[in-house]
Amino acid sequence: MSGGGRSEGRLYFEDLRVGQRFTATATHTLDAAEIKAFAAQFDPQPFHLDADAGQATVFGGLVASGWHTAALTMRLIIEGGPAMAGGTVGLGAELSWHKAVRPGDTLSVSGEVVESIPSRTRSDRGRIVMRIETRNQSGAVVQTCVSRLLVPCRNPDARRD
Amino acid sequence: MSGGGRSEGRLYFEDLRVGQRFTATATHTLDAAEIKAFAAQFDPQPFHLDADAGQATVFGGLVASGWHTAALTMRLIIEGGPAMAGGTVGLGAELSWHKAVRPGDTLSVSGEVVESIPSRTRSDRGRIVMRIETRNQSGAVVQTCVSRLLVPCRNPDARRD
Repeated sequence: MSGGGRSEGRLYFEDLRVGQRFTATATHTLDAAEIKAFAAQFDPQPFHLDADAGQATVFGGLVASGWHTAALTMRLIIEGGPAMAGGTVGLGAELSWHKAVRPGDTLSVSGEVVESIPSRTRSDRGRIVMRIETRNQSGAVVQTCVSRLLVPCRNPDARRD
Repeated sequence: MSGGGRSEGRLYFEDLRVGQRFTATATHTLDAAEIKAFAAQFDPQPFHLDADAGQATVFGGLVASGWHTAALTMRLIIEGGPAMAGGTVGLGAELSWHKAVRPGDTLSVSGEVVESIPSRTRSDRGRIVMRIETRNQSGAVVQTCVSRLLVPCRNPDARRD
């Protein structure tokens, strides 16, 4: 599985194997303005809105909302990660935030297929679990996201045979 | 624990007990334009960007990104949920998306403290696990989020006695 994706044909359930890895082709550098803009809309807390106010908090400065990191991770996957047939349809995700994301940080995303679960009741789809790491420019993992995805089968009838 | 929050004094680790519930005071109604705007920025897939394109997908129309639902849930908690001392600082979250969120849906948020974990090494903080449900106007749960929060202790020295 390469990081390219869009033009290479979309991936079906049968194409995804445990242990396959990808690296998204794009990266994203956050600035203070976008950290504050996201926070104003979705997570209006002092440490996400204002560097001075953030000084007095556990973060010691301005940091991005964890939900902002999660949303940007999704964009990097959609733009340059593996292209699933039927789209990237999430059933759920287990997020851990390990390290603060600060203005000027450059985020990159890589992942690995950790589980492949055929549907017990439907021959036309399955579930894929991916472990997705978001790193900063120093290589430190800022977020892990274990994501459950719904993926269609290429050949639904084959599973009935 | 009421849903009010901002003016009632902030909550410390000692104030939060397993079984306590809250209902956020505000609700939020999504329209198609904001669903598309979020998607353009963070989750640019056909079923989040365009109603016609969404028709041909598993969703059968325009639906909000799960990350949009998660981010809006955070805002409803910050605006009118329990006010934690030190802010609402997430260590991680386990999200499940149960039902699509569509234009015109009105989201509301309620939660319950399900675990309270004193720190083994620090007397000044603890971890609280909250199970947060996001419902639509019909009362159907669209998202659950089991959230791990870092919460400061009111009286750090008391724990050392």
